[in-house]
Order: sequence, then structure tokens, then C-alpha cells
Amino acid sequence: MSGPRTPEPALGGQGASSTGSQDEDTADGIQSSHRMLSFSDALLSIIATVMILPVTHTEISPEQEFDKSVQKLLATRIAVYLMTFLIVTVAWAAHTRLFQVVGKIDDTLALLNLACMMSITFLPFTFSLMVAFPEVPLGILLFCVCVMAVGAVQALIVVYAFHRPHLLSPQIERSAHRALYRQHILGIVLRGPALCLAAAGFSLFFYPVAYLLMATVIFLPYVSKVAGWCRARLVGPREPPAHSLEIFTFDLHEPLSKERVEAFSDGVYAIVATLLILDICEDNVPDSEDVKVKFHGSLVAALGASGPHFLAYFGSFATVGLLWFAHHSLFLHIRKATQPMGLLNTLSLAFVGGLPLAYQQTSAFARRPHDELESVRVSCAIIFFASIFQFAIWTTALLQEGETLQPSVRFGGREHAFMFAKLVLYPGASLLAFACTCVLSSFSTAIFHAMQIAVPFTFLLLRLLVRLALAGLRGLRGLRGPARPTHTRPVPGATDDAQSPLLPAPC
Amino acid sequence: MSGPRTPEPALGGQGASSTGSQDEDTADGIQSSHRMLSFSDALLSIIATVMILPVTHTEISPEQEFDKSVQKLLATRIAVYLMTFLIVTVAWAAHTRLFQVVGKIDDTLALLNLACMMSITFLPFTFSLMVAFPEVPLGILLFCVCVMAVGAVQALIVVYAFHRPHLLSPQIERSAHRALYRQHILGIVLRGPALCLAAAGFSLFFYPVAYLLMATVIFLPYVSKVAGWCRARLVGPREPPAHSLEIFTFDLHEPLSKERVEAFSDGVYAIVATLLILDICEDNVPDSEDVKVKFHGSLVAALGASGPHFLAYFGSFATVGLLWFAHHSLFLHIRKATQPMGLLNTLSLAFVGGLPLAYQQTSAFARRPHDELESVRVSCAIIFFASIFQFAIWTTALLQEGETLQPSVRFGGREHAFMFAKLVLYPGASLLAFACTCVLSSFSTAIFHAMQIAVPFTFLLLRLLVRLALAGLRGLRGLRGPARPTHTRPVPGATDDAQSPLLPAPC
Repeated sequence: MSGPRTPEPALGGQGASSTGSQDEDTADGIQSSHRMLSFSDALLSIIATVMILPVTHTEISPEQEFDKSVQKLLATRIAVYLMTFLIVTVAWAAHTRLFQVVGKIDDTLALLNLACMMSITFLPFTFSLMVAFPEVPLGILLFCVCVMAVGAVQALIVVYAFHRPHLLSPQIERSAHRALYRQHILGIVLRGPALCLAAAGFSLFFYPVAYLLMATVIFLPYVSKVAGWCRARLVGPREPPAHSLEIFTFDLHEPLSKERVEAFSDGVYAIVATLLILDICEDNVPDSEDVKVKFHGSLVAALGASGPHFLAYFGSFATVGLLWFAHHSLFLHIRKATQPMGLLNTLSLAFVGGLPLAYQQTSAFARRPHDELESVRVSCAIIFFASIFQFAIWTTALLQEGETLQPSVRFGGREHAFMFAKLVLYPGASLLAFACTCVLSSFSTAIFHAMQIAVPFTFLLLRLLVRLALAGLRGLRGLRGPARPTHTRPVPGATDDAQSPLLPAPC
Repeated sequence: MSGPRTPEPALGGQGASSTGSQDEDTADGIQSSHRMLSFSDALLSIIATVMILPVTHTEISPEQEFDKSVQKLLATRIAVYLMTFLIVTVAWAAHTRLFQVVGKIDDTLALLNLACMMSITFLPFTFSLMVAFPEVPLGILLFCVCVMAVGAVQALIVVYAFHRPHLLSPQIERSAHRALYRQHILGIVLRGPALCLAAAGFSLFFYPVAYLLMATVIFLPYVSKVAGWCRARLVGPREPPAHSLEIFTFDLHEPLSKERVEAFSDGVYAIVATLLILDICEDNVPDSEDVKVKFHGSLVAALGASGPHFLAYFGSFATVGLLWFAHHSLFLHIRKATQPMGLLNTLSLAFVGGLPLAYQQTSAFARRPHDELESVRVSCAIIFFASIFQFAIWTTALLQEGETLQPSVRFGGREHAFMFAKLVLYPGASLLAFACTCVLSSFSTAIFHAMQIAVPFTFLLLRLLVRLALAGLRGLRGLRGPARPTHTRPVPGATDDAQSPLLPAPC
């Protein structure tokens, strides 16, 4: 048997192999990339979040003080978690970008994507190594090798896709400047790996520079996004680029894909919500010996002893669930997710990932009254930051509301006040709880968790409360005069709504 | 301030509250359920799979023999995992069914759904309790309480959605028999909880009956599906039901939603792939004291000592990734997922969830040569069952190919042979490896993992190999006669393909 690319006239009229196989391959196996992207999003969101587990598993035995060594261990593990989260979100953003260019996949691309994912899953280990042995260059060397592997696979994907243009997104497939696009995208994909190559070199003889370069790889995308956004706010949008550059803007300033932002966020929320039950199942099933000896054979009493853990679990689940709910409501009203919104979303998710830590804090210390205040404060701070960044997403969206928001939630829109209330509920509640810990001399974690579990009912009543509050405001102020005129434009579909609370009656 | 349902003429023309609020609510906040369903799928798939972690964390110290007590512990934990997996998939199927009836959601339904998810996440704990204390009825009582809570929330969802018919799927919304539908769906939703109520009663005075009832709740859906399918195969499809019953068939015999089957499967694959890195990060970062004492300060040597773990990790990731890839290819060609296919998919996923166990087995025993054979066998068995059930999905789909498959992969279609090869690769390879362990006196796990890592390249070469094999077959047999005539119907879009290997030339 010879290879399929050589003509084989002996095989019963099947001699068209060499000329036909190319055509057949190109016609075969072209697939929508949708499911592969969801799978990648799920993988990446889990990897980003799973490193919180070693943080929460930091063992603090009851007789041991919360001393320096434990603090150091905890701090290093939190550092690993945050670094992993940031680098994975950078990788995710690059992946999103790449598959905005590559519109369709075939089997080869699906397998290459798996190779890319495998390299990314190894990144947390390199961080663990770096943090455990900061002065040994092996960790950073492995990190660089991983990033270079990811870059190499992504470069392969780009080259392969441009070699078979029907896999590209239609806009690029039809473009006359395809070769230029390819150069440019290869440049973007290989920028990070090139920095890492330099870092790998430095790591062998002067590792502080290597760490500096690594920090550049991790933080530069964020810094440049923030800087660009601030400049746009202060100076106004930059002048449109010249023609030769304009063709490249396809992807650089394009908003993120809203679907993928949602999928990634869903993954993070789902894994955070379920990591908690794992701890419950592993740690809170009482030992049968213990039950006999300590609790005189009463399983109920034994479970009652770990009652605070269950309360903490349900409280945390309610918090994660409702933060997801707020996120869901928010993105329902968002039409486009811009880069700064994506950044704020990442920050919010990083704190959401910290919630199992808050759970651990509040449940581990639940027995020692003088630590309760401390642990409730940590929980409140984490919840506050997770929710305030959600609020910031909305504020950012309001700044460009014409482009980013659905008409009904724009300033003065029907749903505006309700959305505002939804997003302000958690920052407000956590600030309140934090303030309580400062005023009161002792604060029970049980009350805190009961509060967490009560929040859903507030959400259910929110629509009622908002309407009451607005009616109250209106009644008190007799507010009927003209509001800010730029925001009173009629909202489509809302004209038949006689009681839209923020739309002033026409005067 | 009075409630919003009482007219408030004093509040500046806002007096339409009581009559308008109903209308406003129905117009407001109606949302597509798509994202909530993806989130639920992610949550459920993670809960279903995460209970494999206690199994893999079963500690077997090197000096300890693999004795009875460890075996018993392992067996109970595997039982917890399997029971959790089955009950979660039952809950998932019920959830799918429910949201085929309820087409759209609003805030209240989203919150109710979160409450439902919270109850489901607590199920693994009740299993852990049952397995640890089989003779104490508390575990089963808690299980029943959970299932009843889920049932109550789902019943609330049904009642709420039928109270606001615009939330229902259009087919039911327009139906004249809406009240009948409601009764019927409530019956389905409350069947399990009613059984559990009886089980809870029995658990208090005669718990074996309670376990029996619980087994009914978990296994009955599967048993009845299998029985129904076998009957349909043997006797032929049952006669169409009378008119009074027919209106209920909307959802009972409707195929599962293909999107949700995919989303649930993606979640399982993603979590299984990433659970592995967690073990690597927690266990395989060497201790700095160890490095100094045992390895004379050489970190590379310390890492080299756990080299087999890394190899095992990459091997397992490759296997999980490629099983996902096969699943992805399979479902790309499936148009509709029938009930038996959903069942086979569940079985396949249950074994996929066992893959971290295979990883643990092969890496924990890697140092003891006489155990290597054993551990490789366990891995092969798990991989074999995970992949053979995928193959069974395809076989089942072929039985009703007109309804379930895309034309190009039907028997004799262009992609048929290739799909066959893709799905047969893993069962074949694992059987081969298993056979090797029986023949050879010692078998290295390192070779096994290297094989796992090599499989992707086989996938890349598969298209080539299949074409070679078919050409070879054809050359040997001179196959030009008529094939099975029922399967040679022309395939749309394939007529211009001169070398479609299984389509015989017209004679």
C-alpha cells in the first residue's frame, strides 16, 4: 500500500487520491467552534479558581496560634492563587482573541487547542514551585517553558488556519490583506512567549530580572488596558489610525465576546459554589469512633457540633449564588462587553474565587469568640470587593451607555433604579456588617451566616422596595420638574408604561 | 407607605400601582433561560463529579498493605461517588424536563432555581453520612429531606410558571389543556419526593425499606428507560396513545435537549481534567527541608523523584481531552439525543469521572513493581468502559439513523468509517494494553503513560490511516458489487465526491 497522495490506478478507479484528497479534506470536518470554546472556557475558569483550595486547606490546629509561619504560608498560597488567576485570565483573553480570528475549526485545530489547554493547566504548578523556592530559578524556567509552549501551539493554530482560509472568520477570509493580518496576529500571539524566552535566559544567571519580565507578561495587559481607558476618559478617544494600521484594528479594539465572558464567569461561579460542598463531605462526616466516645453514640449530637459549618456552607452558597444572579441580571442588560468591563469582571471574579476562603475563615474560627470579629471582617471585605467591582462594571457601562446597554436600563430607563438596587445590595450589606463588627464588641458568625441566607428574600422583595422607595422620594420632593435633559430621550417600548418611575412626565 | 397593590393617589399621579403592577411585572424581567441553564449544567456536572476526590484522596501509606480496611474504605467512597453521580444525573434530567416546559424565566424563577441547586449540592453529604453510618437512619432522613426540598422548589417553579403563562414554552402556552398539563407535570415533579416522604417515614422505624425506596428513586428512571427501550426494540414501538393521553406526550417521550447534554458533558470533562492539576500542586511541590536533606539541595533531583506523577498527569489529561474530543465529534454528527443515548452518555461520563482514580492508582503504585500490573489494569478498564459507552451511543444512534444522525455519517455515508475509527480507537487501545498486562510479567506504568500521550498523534493520523485501510480492503477484495441496498441511498452533498470510500460505484 502506498500513501494516499500517490495515484493508485490499480485500486479500481480510486486513482484521484492525490488531487482529490485536498478538496475532500477542506470540505470535510469543518465544524462550528462553539462547543470547543465553551469547553475551553469551562477548563480555564476551573483552573483559574481551583488554586484557592490549597489556601483554604491551610491547616490551623486549634492549639496553634495564628503566628508568623502560618501567616506566611497563607500569604504565599494567596499569592499563588492570585497569580494563577491573573495569568489564566490573560491566557483566556488571548484565546478569545485568537478564536475571533479563527472562526471555524476542524479536528486538527481541536487537538491543537487541547494541547494548548494542557500547557495552561500546568501553570499553577510552576507558581507553586516559584513560591516554595523563590531563589531557585527552576520554577520561573518551567513557567517560561509553559508560556512558550502555549505560544508555539497558538502560533501553529494561526499558521494552520491561515493556510486553510475557510477556517478564518469571514471578514478576514475575504480581506485582501490576509498576509498582513497573519503577521500581525502572529506578533500578538508570540509577544508573551518572546518575553518569556528572555526571562528564561535571565533566570539562568540573574533571576530578579526574570521575575520582572514575568510580571510584565502577567500585568502588562492589565496596565495597558487601564492606561488606555484612562487616557480615553481624560483626553478623549484617540484619533483614528492611518490606513495602514486601520486594517489591524479588527481585533485589537474589538469588544470582548459577551458569550465567552459569560461562559467564563459562569464557570468560576459554579466551581466556587461547589468547592464548598467538597470540604463539607470530606471534613464534616463524623468519625464513628468519635461518635461513640464523645457523643455517646448520638449522631445528631455529633452533627450538631459541626452545625456552624453547615450554616457557613449555606450562607456562602447563597452569597455565591446571588452574586451570580446579580452578574446574570447585569449581563442580561449589557449588549457589548468592552475591555475595561472585562477587566473589572476579572477583578470581581478573583474576589468571588476568594469566597471559599471567607467560608473557611468564618467556619474555622467559629469557636473562638475573639477571632470571630476578625473572620467576619475578612468575609465582608471579600464580599464587598466582589460586589463593588460588579457595580463598577455597570458604572463603566453607563459611561458609554448608548453602545453598551440595552435601552431599558440606561440612565432614566425603566429598569435603571431596579438594576441599581440589585447591584448596590451586596456592597451595602457587607459594609453594614463590617461597620457592625467595628461597633460591637462581639459579633456572632452565626448571625452573619443567617444574614447571608436572608439576602435572597431581600432580592425577592427588591422590586417592591425599589418602587416604594421611589414613590417615597417622589412624594417627599414633589419631583415633577424637568430632569437632566440629555437622559430623557424616549425609551422604545416604554411609552405605554404609565408608571416608569424615573421617566418624568412630559411638561 | 402602603404596599404597591393599594392605590396611592396622593403620590403624584402614581396611583395605577394596583392595576398596573401585574402588567408591568409581566412585561418586565422576562429573560431567556439560556444562561441560567448553562450555569445549572455547570453546577450539576461539577457536583456529580467532585465526589471522586475523596476516593482519590484515600491515603495508602507505602508501608501499609492494601488490606481489608483500606479496601472497604475505598469501596464505600466509590459507592458514594456512584450514588451521587446517579442521583445528580436523575436530578439533571428532571431539571432538563422542567425547563423544556418553562421556556423563559424571570428573577423569581432564577432565585428559585438557585434554591433548587443549593438543595441538590447537599445530596453528596447525605450519601457520605449514609455510607459512614449505614445503620443510623439520620443519613437517609436527610437525603429524603433534601429530595423533598428539591421537589417542593420545583413544584413552586411549576405553579409560578403556570400562573404566568408567558413564561411557559410557546406550545404549552397556546394549548387549551394547560390545566391538565400542570397537573401532569406536578405529578412528575412530585413523584420522587412522595417516595422519599414514605422512605423518611420508614427510616424512623424500619430503615431497610427506606433504603429500598431510595434505590427506587435513584434507579427507577434508568430501569424504566432501559425496559422501555428494550420493549421498543423487541416488540416495536408501542401503539400511539389515546387522545386523552396524547396531550401529555409533549415532554415524556421528547428527546433530551442536545445542547444541555453537551453542556453537562462538557462540565464533567472539564472538571475531571482539572481535578488532576490540583493533586499535582498540593502534593508534588517538594518540601524545602526534604530538598536540603534528601536531595542535597537539588530541586531538579527532587522533582525528578516525582517524575512518574507528572507523566501520569499528562497521560490522564491527554486521555480525558481525547475522550472529550471523541464525544465532541460524535455529537457534532448527532441531530437529536434520544433517551437511551442520554442514558449511555451518563454511563460513559460516570467512568470518565473515575479517571482521576485511574491516575491515582497508576501514580501511587508506580514505585512497587508487583502492583504496577494491577494499577494499569484498573486504568485500562476505566478507559475501556468510558469509551465503549461512547461507541454504544453511536451504535444506538445508527439504529434510528434517519432520525438521530446527520446524513454524512449514516451507514455508508462519507464520514461513517472515520467516525467508526475515532470511536473504536480508545476501546481498542485499552483492550490491547489490558491484554499486554496479562501476557507480560511486568509492565511499566511509564510506558503506559507514554502510550496515553501518544494517542493524540494517532488521532491526527487517523484520517490517513482510515483511507489507507479502506483502500487496502478494497484492493484485497476487489469490492465492486452491490452493497446492502437499504443503505446505499444517495447522501446529499456527497454525490460530487468521487472517492467516498463506502459508497460503491453504481453498477
